[in-house]
Amino acid sequence: MTVSEGDSELLQQLRAVLGEAGLRIQPDDVIPDVVMRPQTTEQVSAILRLCSSAGQPVVPLGGKTGLANGHIQTGGEFGLSLERMNAIEEIDVSNRTMTVQAGCILQVAVEAAEEQELLLPLDFGARGSATLGGIAATNAGGNRVIRYGMAREVILGLEVVLADGTVITSMNKMLKNNTGYDIKQWFIGAEGTLGVITRMVLRLRPNPRSENTALLAVDSFAALTGLLRWLDARTAGTLSGFEVMWPEFYEYVTREGSLHKPPLPHGSAYYVLVETLGSEPEADAERFETVLGQAMEEGLVSDAVLTHSQSERNALWEIRDDVLEFFKLGPIIPFDVSVTLDRMEGFVDDIRSGMDAVKDPVCIVFGHLGDTNLHLILGSEDAGAFDYEALSTLLYETVQRHQGSVSAEHGIGISKREQLCRSRSSAELQLMMAMKKTLDPKNILNPNKIFAADALEAG
Amino acid sequence: MTVSEGDSELLQQLRAVLGEAGLRIQPDDVIPDVVMRPQTTEQVSAILRLCSSAGQPVVPLGGKTGLANGHIQTGGEFGLSLERMNAIEEIDVSNRTMTVQAGCILQVAVEAAEEQELLLPLDFGARGSATLGGIAATNAGGNRVIRYGMAREVILGLEVVLADGTVITSMNKMLKNNTGYDIKQWFIGAEGTLGVITRMVLRLRPNPRSENTALLAVDSFAALTGLLRWLDARTAGTLSGFEVMWPEFYEYVTREGSLHKPPLPHGSAYYVLVETLGSEPEADAERFETVLGQAMEEGLVSDAVLTHSQSERNALWEIRDDVLEFFKLGPIIPFDVSVTLDRMEGFVDDIRSGMDAVKDPVCIVFGHLGDTNLHLILGSEDAGAFDYEALSTLLYETVQRHQGSVSAEHGIGISKREQLCRSRSSAELQLMMAMKKTLDPKNILNPNKIFAADALEAG
Repeated sequence: MTVSEGDSELLQQLRAVLGEAGLRIQPDDVIPDVVMRPQTTEQVSAILRLCSSAGQPVVPLGGKTGLANGHIQTGGEFGLSLERMNAIEEIDVSNRTMTVQAGCILQVAVEAAEEQELLLPLDFGARGSATLGGIAATNAGGNRVIRYGMAREVILGLEVVLADGTVITSMNKMLKNNTGYDIKQWFIGAEGTLGVITRMVLRLRPNPRSENTALLAVDSFAALTGLLRWLDARTAGTLSGFEVMWPEFYEYVTREGSLHKPPLPHGSAYYVLVETLGSEPEADAERFETVLGQAMEEGLVSDAVLTHSQSERNALWEIRDDVLEFFKLGPIIPFDVSVTLDRMEGFVDDIRSGMDAVKDPVCIVFGHLGDTNLHLILGSEDAGAFDYEALSTLLYETVQRHQGSVSAEHGIGISKREQLCRSRSSAELQLMMAMKKTLDPKNILNPNKIFAADALEAG
Repeated sequence: MTVSEGDSELLQQLRAVLGEAGLRIQPDDVIPDVVMRPQTTEQVSAILRLCSSAGQPVVPLGGKTGLANGHIQTGGEFGLSLERMNAIEEIDVSNRTMTVQAGCILQVAVEAAEEQELLLPLDFGARGSATLGGIAATNAGGNRVIRYGMAREVILGLEVVLADGTVITSMNKMLKNNTGYDIKQWFIGAEGTLGVITRMVLRLRPNPRSENTALLAVDSFAALTGLLRWLDARTAGTLSGFEVMWPEFYEYVTREGSLHKPPLPHGSAYYVLVETLGSEPEADAERFETVLGQAMEEGLVSDAVLTHSQSERNALWEIRDDVLEFFKLGPIIPFDVSVTLDRMEGFVDDIRSGMDAVKDPVCIVFGHLGDTNLHLILGSEDAGAFDYEALSTLLYETVQRHQGSVSAEHGIGISKREQLCRSRSSAELQLMMAMKKTLDPKNILNPNKIFAADALEAG
């Protein structure tokens, strides 16, 4: 939208609630030009009540690190940034909970927990800018889901403001609480389309006292899934990472002249970064080595490198995390999907066959295998041969054929809206839309995300 | 209701769908006289469509083992029993999932998983009669929540039939799947008031390969919570039970002449049954002993008995599970509530003080402390002095004062309907009722459960 010179009546009302510093107006191509910056839940309530009355649509803004474009403007929306509601209100050591405002940055919260020798187990690349509100709204996943679950499993309670300004305070701290419908579940993962999350209670865990990490080479997909089951059964409850890199990933990132020396030689079918978080440094290291040795004897692992220091551990994770490197190859698209393990090998084979038709194809596969979550990077080293639509179609048609999920951890936003019907039935979509209409009858909360406004009207 | 001699038109229509064996009509004081017994999801859909058209209310029936009376008739309801939909449709070893129909008994499913060396981690006393549909509808908890979570965490996907007969098939098998709203969460724990769950996908885990159990004596509440934190940090990911018995519980169940010999002498402030489920029998047993030894040195534990055989482990669990013994004391009420750990000691003190006013009081406290879940048994050894209302009021007023939950794991049903407002705000209740009205506008699904019909109409 273009901001008109004079304030509209609504802007004047909002300014009266938020004060001068509470309203930022500057032209922007991505996020809305007008951004409301409340400092309290009461202000969030007041401004949503005003926007609701005026029929003014709103985009809630967190760290803007999601890959589904849930934060962009689609028309005349105002932004609602929680950046000034970023306090850690409490770390409750006896109940092992943390109470935060939604604008709090993940890394800040993680470090504050660590000071109390407690673990906030959410972790992913955007930790330095993603906010906890955005994490809740997208049900973010990340690196340790296999052990601690997604954001949904970490959130014990929350406060949310509905489209009409109603404040729902549901700041539960208890692990068991079956008193009527579990309202918080409706808003986690709803991408800001049902309400604006303002505060949260998070579950903290004991800080791990040992960390063991290895890079393994594996010869076949059957061995890979066998290894996952083997490790899960023999590292009871401590397996926290099972990150698989297909060879194209590993070999490019550790190629000659790259930043990373290959800890294992090239030429294997799969490379797996395995991590356990335990409680007794010496005994855990010994057991980790024994279990991996047994896995080698069983033929599940063909080669292995164990780490013996934090810097060695970091070096392995840096290989896994060096995803930006692939942008050097040419125009590419990063995808985030889920496929069940029994389908995964066939799924990747089908994508590879499909990519044969592309000139100088880029086809990189990696992912959190323990969570059924694959990331794929598809593109072409020849910019002229890059066809966004064709690559998307190949990817999502193959996901659909293998009954996978078009979004594992980044949500739908705008980017995947047209793909949603590949993973969800029309009955499911109708039901979701009924919920949206109940909670946001005027469609002012993050309109056009998940559902296009016209589909919602027609649905 | 009384069943009239001739079939109504609706009964004839239902009989046409279900066949003779699909309709059971017999007078009953608790569950409805008319019970529909479908064999397929299509039949569930057809009969709900018919009931919806006729405005005929329905009570979904599982194993009828819940303690909140979610299964009883409140007026002219028909029952909808899933007892003939009890198949285990699939155990998918490669994806470690199990697909079941809702009428499947928990224990049957657990044993089927075990045959594949997999664990279905739900476990509680009613395992032999509770159905998985009922478990999903009440978000059941039980003995191993501290390690594996409630039913909600075990259910990956489900199929549900809405009030109007619409079938929502959402049989997800993937651990990460952020495609729009997570519909299954709406129905888990909704006590059959939003839809009838017909099928489910459950997450299976590796079967534990070691089990260590001990009974500990603890001198103070501070030591008790310290011990929980101590063990959780030092038995990384394997702590599966932390069951606390207040002395009145332990001393009565192991009194002279009872079935149980006391493994530890009477006279301690608390008794804790601790369990870990691990992966290496010898090493885990050694570590368990070491960690408990250290806890004694730290002053967290004053006495301990470790078990060395399955029969010794069983003997400890039998003490913890012998709740029926307390019915010998006189008229009693069992309660199921949650209170945060920092409030728990004061909560129990307040209940005890309150019970001083009762003649020959019975006041027994125990619970899944790691989950903030307490069970209390209140009553009087003098039947004449037993006052149901007064005891309930004492209990629930104290829960409310300590910001606890009036239902930890059994739900609201009818029994706790009047207490719901002690744990949930009016804004929360309004929002729940809006959801109920959206999904079941005629209020035919388990009416009068969670909300009284007239409250729903007025709300």
